[in-house]
Amino acid sequence: MDSNWKRIIISAPGKVILHGEHAVVYKEPAIAASLDLRSYLCVEKRNDDKVSVQFPDVKLAASWNIQDLKKLSILKCDPLEPQPLSEELLSSLREFTQQKKDTTDPKDLAILAFLYLYTAIQSKEGELSPLDFKLMSQLPVGAGLGSSASLSVCLSAALLTVHSVIEQPCYTDGDKVIFGQWSALHLETINKLAHQAEKIMHGNPSGIDNSVATYGGAIRFQGGNIQKIDRIPELRILLTNTKVPRSTKALVADVRKKYDKYPEIFRPVMESFRAVTEKALETYRMMSRDSINVTTDLYSVLEDLVDINQNLLKLIGVSNSTLEQICQLTSDYGLHTKLTGAGRGGCAITLLRPDTDPVRVEEVQDKLRSCGFDCWKTGVGGPGVVTHFILTQNEQALLKDLITVL
Amino acid sequence: MDSNWKRIIISAPGKVILHGEHAVVYKEPAIAASLDLRSYLCVEKRNDDKVSVQFPDVKLAASWNIQDLKKLSILKCDPLEPQPLSEELLSSLREFTQQKKDTTDPKDLAILAFLYLYTAIQSKEGELSPLDFKLMSQLPVGAGLGSSASLSVCLSAALLTVHSVIEQPCYTDGDKVIFGQWSALHLETINKLAHQAEKIMHGNPSGIDNSVATYGGAIRFQGGNIQKIDRIPELRILLTNTKVPRSTKALVADVRKKYDKYPEIFRPVMESFRAVTEKALETYRMMSRDSINVTTDLYSVLEDLVDINQNLLKLIGVSNSTLEQICQLTSDYGLHTKLTGAGRGGCAITLLRPDTDPVRVEEVQDKLRSCGFDCWKTGVGGPGVVTHFILTQNEQALLKDLITVL
Repeated sequence: MDSNWKRIIISAPGKVILHGEHAVVYKEPAIAASLDLRSYLCVEKRNDDKVSVQFPDVKLAASWNIQDLKKLSILKCDPLEPQPLSEELLSSLREFTQQKKDTTDPKDLAILAFLYLYTAIQSKEGELSPLDFKLMSQLPVGAGLGSSASLSVCLSAALLTVHSVIEQPCYTDGDKVIFGQWSALHLETINKLAHQAEKIMHGNPSGIDNSVATYGGAIRFQGGNIQKIDRIPELRILLTNTKVPRSTKALVADVRKKYDKYPEIFRPVMESFRAVTEKALETYRMMSRDSINVTTDLYSVLEDLVDINQNLLKLIGVSNSTLEQICQLTSDYGLHTKLTGAGRGGCAITLLRPDTDPVRVEEVQDKLRSCGFDCWKTGVGGPGVVTHFILTQNEQALLKDLITVL
Repeated sequence: MDSNWKRIIISAPGKVILHGEHAVVYKEPAIAASLDLRSYLCVEKRNDDKVSVQFPDVKLAASWNIQDLKKLSILKCDPLEPQPLSEELLSSLREFTQQKKDTTDPKDLAILAFLYLYTAIQSKEGELSPLDFKLMSQLPVGAGLGSSASLSVCLSAALLTVHSVIEQPCYTDGDKVIFGQWSALHLETINKLAHQAEKIMHGNPSGIDNSVATYGGAIRFQGGNIQKIDRIPELRILLTNTKVPRSTKALVADVRKKYDKYPEIFRPVMESFRAVTEKALETYRMMSRDSINVTTDLYSVLEDLVDINQNLLKLIGVSNSTLEQICQLTSDYGLHTKLTGAGRGGCAITLLRPDTDPVRVEEVQDKLRSCGFDCWKTGVGGPGVVTHFILTQNEQALLKDLITVL
């Protein structure tokens, strides 16, 4: 990157699972899509020999002397081919940060991911640069919306760009383009490193969250295989966060126990999950083929699939009374809702038609908020990681506390 | 029957579907069991040339001159081999009763069934006898509990016995037996005629209701094939009547529409229904093999199956908020509930363990009643049609308004 750069702003989206959560454990396909709620990372040059981070979402504000970080230089690797993470590397990071081995505090995990990426992605001369990292995220932490992956992807893209491992997308003056996207090859590099950072934070993540944060749109994943979906319609949704904490691990184990106790009952249920996912993919294809004039019929199919999927999830025991309450409440307004992710808490998504009355949507949002839930009117299927040339008014408002001079 | 007889009292049970409702339409198996709520029919000789009926449950009180009924004598058939019902026969019954063709009034249907059985089952001399029929039923009408079948079976058994087509079961003085059951051969005769009466009332009934009312215990039915289950444990249940009316026909059509729209999704769901039914049958067998010491584990399996089955029924769209409310309410007390029959109203059954605290059960019943539902603590798997030699105190109390001198 041009050595005269002063600041770059990069953002990456969160993700929701549209269909197939849990079934994916049984080798069935699932669909994840990017969420129009994003994490924004602002990186600025510093004039001293320090590096600092301000990630208020995880209550992290810290700075280190670059000299101290050089002790971690054993981490030096080719960013284009990141080494598999070793216990040794993790130990040295933990030793440096004086963290406990099994910490699940998002702040601790963010520090680990940051230090890994910061020390792994060096300049050609093997230097670490004095930089200031500030994050502002629209994504709630720990709600299954891929907030950590959006951070990893932003950090990975920023460091690779700053150190000229990949090129900053071009901006031609006078363009109406307000953000730039990297080439497919560069996105692959960003994604690989972000996946390594995700591993530091989450043990053995599927790679879905970082893939969606990198590529945007939607992906189909099945048995470890991640495949980009070419065309996905832009769907509007209500996203509701129950704020009920849940453990994905415990939920997956619970479903496994049921499945193993009654395999004749639950094997066909998994087939039904698969059919829902395949039907949804087929419907998306039909919608994007005729995106200008999407028929009401296709939305009816999507609504049916949301209801059926939610009932299948209830059947395998991962819904709960809070999620059922949200389904019932939105159903009273003619809207269709399913949980997304692990279940028994976490988030729910409510499908909105293009012609759903906005007043009605406001009413539902008010109701949901009055029940104590967080609720966003948002969309899915938007772009992956981008570098911002111009900030929209909304983005300027969002970032005003972090970036003093815009 | 001994010509000096004065009165016989016959009873037959209602039925509940334990598992497999709706799936049976898709050729999967289902289980129906007799309900410990019964219809009691008291038949007495009259001294005039009239025949009278008092069926207060369907608001029917009527009497006819036997001479008038002889006009219907074209109906005369061999009760051991009842003729298939013809449109001609139905027309003549409707003409006689001046009923509309598509009447669904339970009173009208009861008249048709009664007149059919009364005129079809004659004495060897081809005479119709002056008799008085009084019915007292514990079964709500039109709730899917087989109240009409229990009536048909009682009438069929009574008329066949009174006219000595089949023998009255023996009673040996001093026996502790308080009721008598007919032989398998005679039960078959009763059942066949009752099925004809059911056809008059319901068009094309499966024969499940009259089979359960006749044989008691439980039956497995699949693709029109009805098979008695040898050993069924005596299960205690709460039976809750939502009193929400429902149309079986419309519900079956609704499910068919969904199935046809999304066959890949719902075909496996039907397989899952089948697996639930088969697992329940396997569990009943294990329970009755060791009936004295049924383990808590087997009850846990039955509870799981009840929950899974209810969720499958919700998935195919035949639950509703009232039924879900009952499931939730009983679940708050650690009890497991499913709808039984067509759904979206009708009845629900809640499984009770032998060691379920009776105080707890009382509390649940009170709660359900306070919501406006009818609720009975009852059982399933009891005897089919019987003739009563001695009435229990409960039965005497039940019948006191119908039978003046007990």
